[in-house]
Order: sequence, then C-alpha cells, then structure tokens
Amino acid sequence: MLFSPTLDRLVEALRRLPGIGPKTALRLTFHILTMEDSTVEELARALLEAKQKVKHCTRCRNLTEDDLCPICRDERRDSTLLCIVQEPRDILVIEKTGQFRGRYFVLHGALSPLEGLGPSELKIPLLLQQLKTGKIREIIVATNPNVEGDATAFYLADVIKPLNIKVTRIGFGLPVGGDLEYADELTMARALEARREIDG
Amino acid sequence: MLFSPTLDRLVEALRRLPGIGPKTALRLTFHILTMEDSTVEELARALLEAKQKVKHCTRCRNLTEDDLCPICRDERRDSTLLCIVQEPRDILVIEKTGQFRGRYFVLHGALSPLEGLGPSELKIPLLLQQLKTGKIREIIVATNPNVEGDATAFYLADVIKPLNIKVTRIGFGLPVGGDLEYADELTMARALEARREIDG
Repeated sequence: MLFSPTLDRLVEALRRLPGIGPKTALRLTFHILTMEDSTVEELARALLEAKQKVKHCTRCRNLTEDDLCPICRDERRDSTLLCIVQEPRDILVIEKTGQFRGRYFVLHGALSPLEGLGPSELKIPLLLQQLKTGKIREIIVATNPNVEGDATAFYLADVIKPLNIKVTRIGFGLPVGGDLEYADELTMARALEARREIDG
Repeated sequence: MLFSPTLDRLVEALRRLPGIGPKTALRLTFHILTMEDSTVEELARALLEAKQKVKHCTRCRNLTEDDLCPICRDERRDSTLLCIVQEPRDILVIEKTGQFRGRYFVLHGALSPLEGLGPSELKIPLLLQQLKTGKIREIIVATNPNVEGDATAFYLADVIKPLNIKVTRIGFGLPVGGDLEYADELTMARALEARREIDG
C-alpha cells in the first residue's frame, strides 16, 4: 500500500507492461506525478487511440489505421515477392535494410500447439487464398530461428509448394561483425551448413 | 514513421517517461496492441486519476488523496520525532526498516540556486511555522548524501536550532554487506569520520 489507492492502481497498471517490474513501476509513478497534466493526458489518449484505431491490414495483416497498410497501398512495391514474418515489428527490421522491395504477410505468431496456435489462428488459409489468385513467384519465410519459427517455416513450405511457388528461408549463420569465439554451437552448426564456395 | 500516425504518437508519448528510450517505447507499443482493451483502459484511467486525485498532505507534504496523508492521520505515530526527506519515495525506504515511528516532512527537492529551488520552494517556512507550535524534540534530516542534500541539511540545522530542537543527520559510511575494496574515497572518508568505539 502506497500513500493512496489511486497510486497503487497506477503502479499495478504499469507493472502489466513487459519489462516493468515493481521498482520501475514505482519510479515511473513518482515521475508521472511530477509531469505536466497535458503530457500525461497525451499519453493516456495515445494509449486509448492506439487500441481503438489500429487494426490489421485486410491483405497482409500488418498494423494500419486504414483497410490497407501503407506497404500494401504502395504501387511501387514488387508484388511478385512476398515475405512472411511473425510480428509487425519484424517488418521494421527488414525495411531498415533497404534490400527488400516486395510485400509482406504477418502471421502474428508461430505454430504452437501448446499455446493453441494452429494454421487458422495464423490466418494461413487467408494467405493460401491470396496465393492462388496472385502472381507471386517467390516467398521468403522470415519466421524466427527457433523451434516454433522453424516448424512454421516447414509447414508453410509444405502447403505452398504444391502451388508451384518457390519458397525460401532467410539465411542463418554468424552475425556480421561477430566473433567465432562467442558463437553458440547451434549458430556455428548453422553457419557450417550454410557455407558457400568463395568465388575466385 | 511507423505503420500509423496513432502508433507514432504512442511511441513519442512513452519516450517521455524516464528510462524509456526509442527501442523500449517501440517494444511497449507493440505489446500494448496485443493487450486486452480493458487492461489498456485501466492504465489510461490510472494515469489520469493519479494526476487528478493525488495532492500533497497539508501537514507534511507527502502524497495523499485526502487533506492529511495516512501517516499524519495515524494517531499512534510519535509526534515528537520528525524526519525530513527530499522525496515521497524516500518515506517508503525509511518505513521499510520498521525502525522509525515518528512523522515526516517532504521537501520535494533540495536547495539548488541553479534550479531556482530556495527555502520557500521547499516550503521550509511552513515547516518552521509547524515547529513553533509543535512539541517536536528531535528532527532527523534524511536528505541525500550529495552536495545539494548536505547543503539543505546545514541550512535546516541553522534555522531550526534557534528553536531549541535537536537536529540530527542520518549516518553515512559503508553499506552493510559492502566490501572495502569497492568503496569510493568519499564514502570511505565518511566511514572513517563516523567511526565509533567498540564496546568491550
């Protein structure tokens, strides 16, 4: 119990955010009391509006306020190339490289029977329906390099290949700028598997 | 620019909180979109209510929703003993020890001419007025062990001693469980000054 039930409620509400423990929640609460009223009101409004206005793009399931997300609306994107990612934030990572000019499809998760996430929760039927009518020539599966992400990639390859579309997986190996000394054995094994001949 | 201006606004609003940089703000934003509507509404309401309802105790300037804070309302507290702290959160630290049964006075800062914080900003006149009518026999100054906190402690001692009230400063030295090897020179110097004879 803090000095008032209102403050207790704020600490509890902040603790539900990821990475915010009891100490940080308390520190934030004390800080919020010293902030301008208008700044706190902006934060409260931004929270509510994000939940109210932001939805999934009807085509790629990226986040958007409109029916189609900015990437799906962009006529200059290559619509023969599709990249499948687990989360909207993964799109930001790929866009930052400036190397990909195709479109995306967001699963909002990976196959995980334990969590009740099957193909229909990930909207894979919607994806397959789009592939049947589309002109896509290659699908890059960029799910995470872990058990769920790999299983999802194999499942996607299985259901997409009968449609005569090339399915590729992003490359795994040592991170650029990394040091062999600090590589874990799984990454090192993948790096060996992914070896390429050096052009002479 | 994220996928929607609403999300950009939420990232910006979260970044105004202390210790939350651009990456954390982005991570929180994506997480907030996956939270239940009701949980986000509770957080927004808790933010607004904390600003609207929480004020300063008219006696000790601790945080409270009523005129008097829970500590000032508690008849069992020793009203001959007063502890002066910089911030409401410092009260929590002292209460946790279970060693102090007196009352508090919160300065909401320390003397700092550069920041425009003088005695009247810290409501020291209100404190002196209370001391004149009260029955306090000892004041423990628990401001922070730094330049501003020490200057504030000396100033308080100066203005309170003419009222024939004992003024003490909390002890400084090595933290319990600490190791001499890692003590900085200022802490070590204070620990030497604060040495006591060992009872034989």
